[in-house]
Amino acid sequence: MNAQYKSCIEAVYRCIEACNVCYHACLKEEHMSNMSKCIELDRECAEICTLALHSMQRSSTFAIQILSLCAEICDACGTECKSHNHQHCQDCAQACFRCAEECRKLIS
Amino acid sequence: MNAQYKSCIEAVYRCIEACNVCYHACLKEEHMSNMSKCIELDRECAEICTLALHSMQRSSTFAIQILSLCAEICDACGTECKSHNHQHCQDCAQACFRCAEECRKLIS
Amino acid sequence: MNAQYKSCIEAVYRCIEACNVCYHACLKEEHMSNMSKCIELDRECAEICTLALHSMQRSSTFAIQILSLCAEICDACGTECKSHNHQHCQDCAQACFRCAEECRKLIS
Amino acid sequence: MNAQYKSCIEAVYRCIEACNVCYHACLKEEHMSNMSKCIELDRECAEICTLALHSMQRSSTFAIQILSLCAEICDACGTECKSHNHQHCQDCAQACFRCAEECRKLIS
Repeated sequence: MNAQYKSCIEAVYRCIEACNVCYHACLKEEHMSNMSKCIELDRECAEICTLALHSMQRSSTFAIQILSLCAEICDACGTECKSHNHQHCQDCAQACFRCAEECRKLIS
Repeated sequence: MNAQYKSCIEAVYRCIEACNVCYHACLKEEHMSNMSKCIELDRECAEICTLALHSMQRSSTFAIQILSLCAEICDACGTECKSHNHQHCQDCAQACFRCAEECRKLIS
Repeated sequence: MNAQYKSCIEAVYRCIEACNVCYHACLKEEHMSNMSKCIELDRECAEICTLALHSMQRSSTFAIQILSLCAEICDACGTECKSHNHQHCQDCAQACFRCAEECRKLIS
Repeated sequence: MNAQYKSCIEAVYRCIEACNVCYHACLKEEHMSNMSKCIELDRECAEICTLALHSMQRSSTFAIQILSLCAEICDACGTECKSHNHQHCQDCAQACFRCAEECRKLIS
């Protein structure tokens, strides 16, 4: 596996985890109706991050294009999560923004 | 691709579609708080059905085991969906039960 | 589900099927060593097509960006498949090019 | 996220990585024809492990059933990998067996 991917893979993995945890927690929130956008983006973000993770681990020739899309979806998910006070949302926002940053380091 | 899989593949594909449509519609429902279990199961069901679809199309040696788990998750999703009056839930329930049935035909 | 996606969903689904069938058949070919690029791209293409399928079925706000990447990977997979004489490769090339075309109709 | 899943999640993640690395390396091997079963199982194993990872991170009610299937596929992949002398195959075998073991700890 390409050594240059190491810190991005770590950030992508943490983002998958944070998105899945936030997704599940949102579905248990008392005022779940406010969380629909967050639930939706948590899933989208976990999915593109999973594709990004596999593409780096397999040294895909499309890794850069996938990371570019991944950064965009991470930004959207991070922005939505940041607007909610729940700890799982704040944690997820942080993981998303860090992931987007690591993806962009590799793209440039 | 194995010809015996044909009607099961069709049912699995229809189930993925119904689950994704129901998932998205549930997130837009006015009383979304009642739909959390449905949202959760729609995603689980779409994911195992996707794995089942790929396993049949690739003639995986684990197709039968995957179909067995798929039938179980389809039953759970169908039962949850059936308890809601929304048309997308009723449609999804029907697709889930048909999918479970087709999976079980191949298992036996 | 958005009606405008209908023919693209159909093309994406046919492409997943063709890629999975071609992937499995390539692994059984006598001269498998010539097929490594084809095997690799069949998998990449099936994966991005699966994400594209789900994104359309769930009316994702990122569907267009995903379709754009999908078209690019379909083109690469189709070009590789077209260079092999096996029927499964020719069938896959056709499904890939048709899928790329349908994706691009929606992007524009 | 359920704390009891911690060491299993770690093992599943390492297994995904090892399978993806082994998959890509097998496709570059000089005598790739010997590696077809390994390539096939690396992909199957990475896919079920990914589903297992997400199911634990989302505290799915089906996590145990998914882990049970995951253990079975890990065993098959580990056994195949163990029979090849390549370092990536030996590393993958070790990651697969450890993953199967961790899955079984949670099942029992």
